[in-house]
Amino acid sequence: MADEIKTKATMEKIVSLCRRRGFIFQSSEIYGTLASCWDFGPLGVELKRNIKEAWWKDMVQTRDDMVGLDSSILMHPMVWQASGHLKNFSDPLVECKKCQKRYRQDELEKQECPSCGGELGEPRQFNMMFKTYMGPIEDSSAVVYLRPETAQGMFVNFQNIVTSTRKKLPFGIAQMGKSFRNEITTGNFIFRDREFEQMEIEYFVKPGTQDKWFEFWVNERFNWYKKLGIKPEHLMLRQHCKEELAHYALGCTDIQFYFPMGWGELEGIASRGDYDLTQHANASGKNLKYIDEEAKEQYLPYVIEPSAGVDRGVLAFLCDAYDEDVADGEARVILRFHPRIAPVKAAVLPLSKKEPLATYARDIFNNLRKDWVVQYDDTQSIGRRYRRQDEIGTPFCITIDFQSLEDNQVTVRERDSMQQIRIPVAELKATLAAKLAGEPISQGRAVWKTGEK
Amino acid sequence: MADEIKTKATMEKIVSLCRRRGFIFQSSEIYGTLASCWDFGPLGVELKRNIKEAWWKDMVQTRDDMVGLDSSILMHPMVWQASGHLKNFSDPLVECKKCQKRYRQDELEKQECPSCGGELGEPRQFNMMFKTYMGPIEDSSAVVYLRPETAQGMFVNFQNIVTSTRKKLPFGIAQMGKSFRNEITTGNFIFRDREFEQMEIEYFVKPGTQDKWFEFWVNERFNWYKKLGIKPEHLMLRQHCKEELAHYALGCTDIQFYFPMGWGELEGIASRGDYDLTQHANASGKNLKYIDEEAKEQYLPYVIEPSAGVDRGVLAFLCDAYDEDVADGEARVILRFHPRIAPVKAAVLPLSKKEPLATYARDIFNNLRKDWVVQYDDTQSIGRRYRRQDEIGTPFCITIDFQSLEDNQVTVRERDSMQQIRIPVAELKATLAAKLAGEPISQGRAVWKTGEK
Repeated sequence: MADEIKTKATMEKIVSLCRRRGFIFQSSEIYGTLASCWDFGPLGVELKRNIKEAWWKDMVQTRDDMVGLDSSILMHPMVWQASGHLKNFSDPLVECKKCQKRYRQDELEKQECPSCGGELGEPRQFNMMFKTYMGPIEDSSAVVYLRPETAQGMFVNFQNIVTSTRKKLPFGIAQMGKSFRNEITTGNFIFRDREFEQMEIEYFVKPGTQDKWFEFWVNERFNWYKKLGIKPEHLMLRQHCKEELAHYALGCTDIQFYFPMGWGELEGIASRGDYDLTQHANASGKNLKYIDEEAKEQYLPYVIEPSAGVDRGVLAFLCDAYDEDVADGEARVILRFHPRIAPVKAAVLPLSKKEPLATYARDIFNNLRKDWVVQYDDTQSIGRRYRRQDEIGTPFCITIDFQSLEDNQVTVRERDSMQQIRIPVAELKATLAAKLAGEPISQGRAVWKTGEK
Repeated sequence: MADEIKTKATMEKIVSLCRRRGFIFQSSEIYGTLASCWDFGPLGVELKRNIKEAWWKDMVQTRDDMVGLDSSILMHPMVWQASGHLKNFSDPLVECKKCQKRYRQDELEKQECPSCGGELGEPRQFNMMFKTYMGPIEDSSAVVYLRPETAQGMFVNFQNIVTSTRKKLPFGIAQMGKSFRNEITTGNFIFRDREFEQMEIEYFVKPGTQDKWFEFWVNERFNWYKKLGIKPEHLMLRQHCKEELAHYALGCTDIQFYFPMGWGELEGIASRGDYDLTQHANASGKNLKYIDEEAKEQYLPYVIEPSAGVDRGVLAFLCDAYDEDVADGEARVILRFHPRIAPVKAAVLPLSKKEPLATYARDIFNNLRKDWVVQYDDTQSIGRRYRRQDEIGTPFCITIDFQSLEDNQVTVRERDSMQQIRIPVAELKATLAAKLAGEPISQGRAVWKTGEK
């Protein structure tokens, strides 16, 4: 299947572009880097923010049946005992008796033996939660863990949220935030990190309705990626077979993306029954049942969990948007981001640094940046400046020339088609707003022409 | 000084309101809570987001001289050796020889001896960074720390950012994110936590210009809180005296807020010279000098650091907004949030649940929520619903009655003045936009009247 899909993105190209233009740097680079941790630079932080903001707006703020949460990374250790993470969130590791290096058993089976050629010991379970101590004394009573998922924050707050918001089933709790997993095998740039960010929903439903809602959320989330511009041929659903499911799970479907290294999970939607609330009710001794006033019943709701990785989302949007073509005889790299995702929405490019053009252009720039992230660039040729904006995915460039001073018109150039229109400055903001909201380029009062100046 | 300031907020009232209405819950409450960690509920997460978004927009997106960053929480341990945190970020603790409890020395001097009455040992230094191990082996080579501040992420990325953005001095790097400090003495609700969030700027300037920029940032940040509605009498500047300053610091001024427990630091602005870049240049062996092409010089820039606590900001905005008064003979609690900060911008309140009023009101609600966080409430009396919205700080309530079906007009009621206007539905969005942006209530086409229906 992978062979059929055309993509110009390779991991080398993406990593290099990300570093050169300030999307993503390796953590602590001046000290030789810290493995599997990454820093989002000036463009990367805006890209990541846009993905998170789109998710928050679409999944929380414009839905009646969803509320937000921001729970802490450090939680009571009983949370992880009840959830099963302390016992089961582990990888089997085998140690080389000669060099003492440790390897994941399932990885070893796929690859060569350790390079030193030493004999391997018996596999032992290694928990993937990061452990630390709270308070001044490092003893077992002070152990806390960095959360390996944001999900448990939603479960332990279920009753608090029902009480304070008076929400009725079905409804969900959504949360974005950092999680940490001490993975042995990391890699593929920001695909599998030890520190990463999640966007998770726990959607609580009346038992018996879970299949309908599971299907709803699989479709809702799949369509969300398409709506934000991911090419349909780069997405697929993968249903877990029975053998892959945890004992309590009723079903699980992954949304996969075609990354440069192959298909990989972008998001998982799981039908978890009442497993988590049951575990926490038993471990805490608290009544976590929902009181259904209409049906005059009390029960533990069932849960559908759409769980997405933010960093994987960033990587998917980058890879999907990556393109190369030739413009006016010159090779260019373009990130064809959806306008909602693009870190910079427009660039203001005066043809000269001289006055009065500079002040004229600055005024336009200052007006636009009240509403959007906009760049101002007045160095080098206009062609070079277009290339620089194409490479970071800016959907629109606004060129200001000497004629603008006379007719109060500017040229708007569109990234993907390279079409240009000349419009009155008074119409610029409304035109940009319409185009950024997705109006076709060809539509509108002004006529777009092909080719660059 | 504290006696002169009038405030109706007490910590008990704030904590209770926050829990009842879903602003802030204690972490892991069903397991007896985890000390000094807090979860932001549905309203709290929006309040916190609004504060962070206002900071990001005002400090990063609308400034030419600022870029954003989102660096990882786990960093290379050399970062903390170079920064001085490994050696100096510690509290002196004394242990009771009888009960083995540990106490901060400076706190002990202020209060009673430990309750058990045992003899105290010699003070020992206790580092406040949380320590964990990365990778499968828990030995000294695997130690990493949770960052105690976001600031060092900006310093170690200084050269990456200069190279990728081509920024010229003076310019700043800004970052929001979680930090962790294993404080011995925590408390006062979300004022001093072990897990907390920061909004920090490192502003790099040419040596010799630091005093001008220090003054600029002290004013800029002080005015930011006032602009977002904090009462001037609840704010003051506190300049650190020479004895309080670190050996390398050129100056430090705190922005203090009058919390219920007294004046406390909300933000610190420090003039740090080239201390941090010097330390990292020496420890890493990398050249971190800035190439000043105009002056044809190379030098390490000086740094001004405005460092704010997000959680303290949330608490300050809550306490400052808290008010009680009497409306139509009934006591009410009001959070007088600035519209930019308010978690819910408007509430749509139909006078009846019946059709066709319900569909009519729903349409208005669905239209408004495309742009803002809006609530829909159709239960209990209109007075009760106003009280509920006042208590969470919603600036505007939109009441829809049976006459609305005939004249296509709705009543907009303002939280603080309780003034009401009746306006055409067609003008609702523009009116709300103007009022939310800060237009005086009395201004506009429609006339506001006093008193509630």
